[in-house]
Order: sequence, then C-alpha cells, then structure tokens
Amino acid sequence: MAAWGERLAGVRGVLLDISGVLYDGGEGGGAAIAGSVEAVARLKRSRLKVRFCTNESQKSRGDLVRLLQRLGFDISEGEVTAPAPATCLILKERGLRPHLLVHDGVRSEFDQIDTSNPNCVVVADAGEGFSYQNMNKAFRVLMELENPVLFSLGKGRYYKETSGLMLDVGPYMKALEYACGIEAEVVGKPSPEFFKSALREMGVDASQAQ
Amino acid sequence: MAAWGERLAGVRGVLLDISGVLYDGGEGGGAAIAGSVEAVARLKRSRLKVRFCTNESQKSRGDLVRLLQRLGFDISEGEVTAPAPATCLILKERGLRPHLLVHDGVRSEFDQIDTSNPNCVVVADAGEGFSYQNMNKAFRVLMELENPVLFSLGKGRYYKETSGLMLDVGPYMKALEYACGIEAEVVGKPSPEFFKSALREMGVDASQAQ
Repeated sequence: MAAWGERLAGVRGVLLDISGVLYDGGEGGGAAIAGSVEAVARLKRSRLKVRFCTNESQKSRGDLVRLLQRLGFDISEGEVTAPAPATCLILKERGLRPHLLVHDGVRSEFDQIDTSNPNCVVVADAGEGFSYQNMNKAFRVLMELENPVLFSLGKGRYYKETSGLMLDVGPYMKALEYACGIEAEVVGKPSPEFFKSALREMGVDASQAQ
Repeated sequence: MAAWGERLAGVRGVLLDISGVLYDGGEGGGAAIAGSVEAVARLKRSRLKVRFCTNESQKSRGDLVRLLQRLGFDISEGEVTAPAPATCLILKERGLRPHLLVHDGVRSEFDQIDTSNPNCVVVADAGEGFSYQNMNKAFRVLMELENPVLFSLGKGRYYKETSGLMLDVGPYMKALEYACGIEAEVVGKPSPEFFKSALREMGVDASQAQ
C-alpha cells in the first residue's frame, strides 16, 4: 500500500478504460469484471478526479453508459470520452462528409453529420457489419477520391467477449489501408490527441494523471 | 516490330497471367479482353513455350480452364500454374492440416488434404466468404496455435470485375497478420518460388522467360 501511495503522489486524476477493464461485453450486454464496480465507487469517494476513456465504437455513449449503470457502475454520459463524438468534431472542423462503415448501435452519434456525396470514410468496430460487401463499398468510395481520407475509431487488434476473442476495428483498418495504399487517421487510443482531449475534459495536466 | 524482335532474342518461353490479362471476371463468368484469344493462339503457333501463371483462387484449375475454353482460349489444365495446387504440395510436405478460409469454388482443390484438428490457416480470395464470422473463426484458430502459420494464396490488393473493383485476398491477409502479430507465407505471385515452379513446369530457365 505504501508503494501505491508513493506512485500516486502528485496524481490528481485517473483515466479509466471501460471494455475489458470495467466489464467484458457479450450476450445480454456483458458482465462487470469482479471488483470493478467497487473500485470505481472508491475512486469517486477519493480526492481524485475520475474520467472514463474508451475506444468502444459499437455503441453510442448513451447506450454504453446505460449498460454500465445497469451493471451497477456510478457513471454518467458527461464523464465519458469516446471516439465517435471526437470524430464528429473533426469532421465538422474539416468540412468532411463521411461514408460510415460502423455498427448500427453507434450510427446515432453521426445524426448531425452530412453523409451525402461522401469525401472520406469512417471505420469503426462494425462487428457483423464487416461483410465483404460493406468492406468493398468503403474501398470503392476511397478509390474514387482524389485524396482518400480514412478515419479509424481506434486500432485495436481484438477484444474479449464472454464467448471468446473478437476481431476489433484495427485489422479492418489495416485491410483498407493496404487495399488503397493509404494510412488511416486514428481517432481514439493510443492517439495522444485523444488522451489529451480526455485530460482537458477532466481539467488535469498529463503529468498529473495516471 | 524490330524492337520486339530484339527484346525477344534468347527468349524461349512466355508466362501469361490470366485474370485482368486474358479476361475480366464478372457476372456470367466474365468476358475475354479484346485481342487476347488471338494473342494466345499466335503465341502457341510460334516457337515459344507458353504457360499460364495465375493467382486465381476463387475457382479450381478445372473450372477456370473450362471457363477460358468457353471464352475461346486454347488452354488446358496442365498448362496452368495456380496457388491452390502449389499450397497443397507445401501442406503435404510439412504435414500441416489447414483451416480453410476460401471460396467454395476452390474448395475441391483441397479434397485430398486432412483438415481435421487444424494447425494452420489457408486464406484465399473468398469473396462474399469474407464475413466477420468467417474471419473471426480463422483468427481464433490462429490464436489458439503455439506457432501460428498463415498461408495466403497471393497478396493482391484488388482486381477488376465487369461490375467494378473488388477487394482481393491481400487486404484480408493483412487483417489477420495485424490481428495475430504474424507474417503470412504467400503462395502465388509475386513469390519468386511460385514463378520458379511455373518455369520448371515449362522447362525454361528464368533468363529465357519473358
């Protein structure tokens, strides 16, 4: 315990991952990981600021938070940094209209975004949506652009569900990169920009976070 | 014509690609590319040896040759070097039992191969077979192996069908490589071994081929 005390000296805030840390997804929504509900509660009772930073891109922030609340977590939507809302900000800033290769569960995050006559592609963890037809459609959109722009919501290799390992968005990002000879812009962890935005939202410097 | 004569001086054999060179695939089997039927006929009337070297991995060699014959080409099964039969030789040599992520059209090439209790994965241009479920199955097989071995029948980025561009096996090979942190063994072009086997079958040295 002394070691932890030393390590946390000067720390003002904690960024917590969600999938695989607080809960494992799966049938019926998934299950809380043992001890995590109480750990979040203890952190919130402490002097530390707490924020949740996830690459979850199958669900909207609202759906994710409702699921976690149902599993017993003390969490609200405003405490979560997620790649879909961050991507919407970038799309608006740069005037880009995306073709979306995303899970139906996260599509509502893009409701305010113009998707007509697309001039970029956004790929997220689409799960079963990663059909050959959907991949080929995204590929063709990119190949028809003079300057193909591909955003990937995270670049995870795989994640664990209660049923076993599942391919994440990263392998499909790599597939499109290779097919088109381009490099994707990753929105989400491990992009430093993404961590910084989470810290900004928490009001903590990088040197003060764990 | 003089330039061609000079370029062909010392050349004894010609390796011809098939997809995108002799014909474009598509609905109803596809269509011969203008002039290619006559070009093959002229080469066969010449003093040059002719062999066909393809990365086609959606069809068995027999089906491919029957299609080309129907389009008017003078071609027989014994004149074709293709990755599926080459892969079968490697699997037998190394005592490997593959999990097959391949198109139904090419599955018959593996009829003599033991696929029980797989200890490697073979990926080919599976087309619509590249569903999330099938990709995840291949991924899980690889992750359960102590030494994951992945064979890819070619590594093409995409090819042209009469309906437009189509993702080839390469992007899906890259996806599995990234997911598992491994490198695939490519059987097919541009692997030098594959070209050499085609030349051996033609009885011509690399220096004498075009």
